[in-house]
Amino acid sequence: MTDAPFHSPEEFAAMLATLPAANHSAAEAASERNGMLTKPPGALGRLEDLAIWYASWRGTPRPRVERPQVIVFAGNHGVTAQGVSAFPAEVTVQMVANFEAGGAAINQLSRLAGAEMSVHALDLDSPTQDFTQGPAMDGGACVAALATGWGAVDPSADLLVVGEMGIGNTTSAAAIAAALLGGTGADWAGRGTGVDDAGLRRKAEVIDAGLAKNPWRAPMDVLCSFGGREIAAMAGAIARARAEGIPVILDGFICSAAALVLHKCDPAALDHCVAGHLSEEGAHGAMLDAMEKSPLLSLGLRLGEGSGAAVAIHILKAAVACHSGMATFAEAGVSDG
Amino acid sequence: MTDAPFHSPEEFAAMLATLPAANHSAAEAASERNGMLTKPPGALGRLEDLAIWYASWRGTPRPRVERPQVIVFAGNHGVTAQGVSAFPAEVTVQMVANFEAGGAAINQLSRLAGAEMSVHALDLDSPTQDFTQGPAMDGGACVAALATGWGAVDPSADLLVVGEMGIGNTTSAAAIAAALLGGTGADWAGRGTGVDDAGLRRKAEVIDAGLAKNPWRAPMDVLCSFGGREIAAMAGAIARARAEGIPVILDGFICSAAALVLHKCDPAALDHCVAGHLSEEGAHGAMLDAMEKSPLLSLGLRLGEGSGAAVAIHILKAAVACHSGMATFAEAGVSDG
Repeated sequence: MTDAPFHSPEEFAAMLATLPAANHSAAEAASERNGMLTKPPGALGRLEDLAIWYASWRGTPRPRVERPQVIVFAGNHGVTAQGVSAFPAEVTVQMVANFEAGGAAINQLSRLAGAEMSVHALDLDSPTQDFTQGPAMDGGACVAALATGWGAVDPSADLLVVGEMGIGNTTSAAAIAAALLGGTGADWAGRGTGVDDAGLRRKAEVIDAGLAKNPWRAPMDVLCSFGGREIAAMAGAIARARAEGIPVILDGFICSAAALVLHKCDPAALDHCVAGHLSEEGAHGAMLDAMEKSPLLSLGLRLGEGSGAAVAIHILKAAVACHSGMATFAEAGVSDG
Repeated sequence: MTDAPFHSPEEFAAMLATLPAANHSAAEAASERNGMLTKPPGALGRLEDLAIWYASWRGTPRPRVERPQVIVFAGNHGVTAQGVSAFPAEVTVQMVANFEAGGAAINQLSRLAGAEMSVHALDLDSPTQDFTQGPAMDGGACVAALATGWGAVDPSADLLVVGEMGIGNTTSAAAIAAALLGGTGADWAGRGTGVDDAGLRRKAEVIDAGLAKNPWRAPMDVLCSFGGREIAAMAGAIARARAEGIPVILDGFICSAAALVLHKCDPAALDHCVAGHLSEEGAHGAMLDAMEKSPLLSLGLRLGEGSGAAVAIHILKAAVACHSGMATFAEAGVSDG
């Protein structure tokens, strides 16, 4: 693992503003190329913007997507003691074994997208604290998780997807959103893996109790308050991708909660990220709106694992394949209208 | 080319009701398998329905997508004499050369999707008749184009995308939609490759003139009335796919007009088809609604060529990869809630 250039949540937050910006000359050159390709202006719609955006972060007007990386972080949540999930907490470690054996959805989707996939289980034997009783993580646990995420990114990747597994983590994510964006548990709680109406009410109450017990609202304090380790690791990985010039496709509700922490630290911290999909988890759209991200896909997914973002890799690849592979009007001898 | 089992547009229409239906036992077995996979019920959203649908047409509960085929049909339209396009008619043949040289968007997208791509130019030297003066095609021209489409499908393919190129063909497609679904030129005309406001008004007037000159409303008469050859060929190919048990991903506005002709002949004729995307061409949504198809993607594309459907191949592949590749709860030793 690379030594992380931060030793506290506060240092991590301060570092975000120092990370590199997009390459504007590459964006301009890519935009110019886009205008010369054999298609009516704008006819590839969002694929055109996506290709130019990707070019701007890769620093080249005619990029390729050849080394996507998918990282799945797993963590356990003390708040599961409050009965917030339709599945028992031991499913987290069982699913990690399933990831390692190649049997989960994200394994199939990573392979299909030509992505290297890795799994990082974060202290599954030590769940975070139940946030209705106090902060889920102290600063040391948070920075360790951020550093795990930071170190998990392959600097030679050219696209990153971060996913997660953690029974109870839609409750953490909803609490983070409520703390950072306002509202109550009922505004942000969803059915997660499939709780019933009573479970949904219980989940909202648990979030409200956590918000009352953890009154801090600075972004890194919110992350520590509600956890979990896998969410902090995702935040660390997204930041590392920025440091390495690797564009990121955000996944659903939980990944977006990690991203929201970065966004609240620095509104420009997610400029290298695109939203892969709109989750079926009801409040995801409001989180994306808060980050000013428009999802590429809306297929009713609510699985996590990075699954929606992994499907969206193909959309980005399609955009870049057209942009970098098409002939210009001059090359093809086509009249340009 | 396979001898087509029809010798007139009417025989083609009558044949549609005789084509095979989906395999219900495969669908049931696929649905049962879906319920055992290591994910919360329904968590893969639309991907789950898509995999089961694909299984039902391939006649196996655990299918693979290994041989997608993309066919691009090109035709020229006499109605271009009315000034309905932002591009000159010679662009059709120029773009066919671009397809053959590998420089168009659909070449890049077919390669990315692992699809075999072929191009069929239909009598480009003989544009269809200007439909403001009478029918675009007689029965013989229509059946020849249907047969070209029928013969272009590879029976060993396991997924089909049909695309098109034909300057003027959004005008033909809009006229077909208006004739089959009601409304006027203004309801169905869009900007196509990029006409301005005056061009859009002109296009609507041309469609209205065509509707008045061609008062027949039986589906195959409408196809003959408004053309073009590439639209008839797409209809022929979609029907052939049904005969061979090959599921189809529909592309945008023009492909949907071809599909609409089939749908009006027999409402079940498109059961083996899914809508790949919602085109930016404004009236596409209404055409999909009429066929009760919900698009997989909505990325603002309006290029044709099969481009949107080719991007959607990845969505279908993702669905099938998860369905057929994931472990069951029992296989993975994961508690199922």
